[in-house]
Amino acid sequence: MLTKEQILAMCDHTVLRPEAELPEIIDNCRLAQNFHCASMCLAPSFVKPVRDMFGDSLRITTVVGFPNGYSDTATKAYEALHLINEGADEIDAVINIGWAREGNYKDLAEELRRLRRQTQDHTLKIIVETCKLPIPVLREVCRIVSDSGADFIKTSTGFAERGASVDDIRIMREECAPAVKIKAAGGIRTFEDAQALIDAGADRLGTSRLVNLMLPDITLKPDDEKKKR
Amino acid sequence: MLTKEQILAMCDHTVLRPEAELPEIIDNCRLAQNFHCASMCLAPSFVKPVRDMFGDSLRITTVVGFPNGYSDTATKAYEALHLINEGADEIDAVINIGWAREGNYKDLAEELRRLRRQTQDHTLKIIVETCKLPIPVLREVCRIVSDSGADFIKTSTGFAERGASVDDIRIMREECAPAVKIKAAGGIRTFEDAQALIDAGADRLGTSRLVNLMLPDITLKPDDEKKKR
Repeated sequence: MLTKEQILAMCDHTVLRPEAELPEIIDNCRLAQNFHCASMCLAPSFVKPVRDMFGDSLRITTVVGFPNGYSDTATKAYEALHLINEGADEIDAVINIGWAREGNYKDLAEELRRLRRQTQDHTLKIIVETCKLPIPVLREVCRIVSDSGADFIKTSTGFAERGASVDDIRIMREECAPAVKIKAAGGIRTFEDAQALIDAGADRLGTSRLVNLMLPDITLKPDDEKKKR
Repeated sequence: MLTKEQILAMCDHTVLRPEAELPEIIDNCRLAQNFHCASMCLAPSFVKPVRDMFGDSLRITTVVGFPNGYSDTATKAYEALHLINEGADEIDAVINIGWAREGNYKDLAEELRRLRRQTQDHTLKIIVETCKLPIPVLREVCRIVSDSGADFIKTSTGFAERGASVDDIRIMREECAPAVKIKAAGGIRTFEDAQALIDAGADRLGTSRLVNLMLPDITLKPDDEKKKR
């Protein structure tokens, strides 16, 4: 069993709601630092302001082709390189789910090769959105991600029907080369959830909940209720 | 009261599910043609294959910064121009919702100006995701969209808590210049829904349902159940 601190150090503390505002993101970046999280995962348009504010004191993850994965390859490649130039350390990019389901593995693999070339020595995680792939397709996609040279395979965006499952992680560990790490994301609500995913083989976790569990008495600047309809 | 045919001619027939496969998209493009819809709205990665297959016989709408709106400005601008070069006729781009809520209207307006420059004489629709904006913010955003030179303001992505409402359309009509058209999208399930939105001022509708209502006996190649988990 890992301690809470050990688990938090494996987390990309994540805020990707479309309506998140910069002050909330900054507060969460400070929390990610305080709990020594692996990184802060935030939306593309926050990369530059957060890098400008935090300098080298924070590791930044952002997302590409997110969450639906059906941006075209040229745009994903542009986005990945641009976000690295803006200050991102890690890129979490979504596969083209339709291509996977159709069996268009050629275009899928070529897109991953382009993303690998664009990101070079930065950390590249490939999100496969497991809940939208039949298991035989998931297994084939795992092998393609493994062959692409990506650093991580990642289960989920958090925007689909469900997030990571222990079965997803087991399949990924079976199909990917040992050098490929696994990020479990989506629906991780408790330290027990996290431990089960780690026991199954997860190396990194994507969640906002675990940091928040540490803060029962701190108000995280939630959305201003007065401004809501 | 408009006829069903008149309403269908105002529809961008829309399939934007992340798991949609090319054969389903092609079938839906044929339906959009058969019912003389305003256009077929599909994901970026389908623009080129559909343009190659249908030539000039189909008007194609696609999406930029979709659905969360938090891609950075440079990526949205690249994506819009690239998709026009791939064959898109109309671009439906999502605003940065966080910027709107924060009151960062300067960056919001500058992004819209860049999108207008990139899309030139192609149709540009700006999606404001009304359900995520407090009403005073929605009114301000309507004025900014109106000033940007966009052809349309559009209510919703279809991926948020709710789609278009009659109240949304009324507010848009009050705040936007008369030359700015309105697209209602999300949650339009019946011809009665459509008529109510048109009566409130909508010029275009985004929906997959109305075409499907015309086809009670035709199977639209739904997802292959055998492939599902």
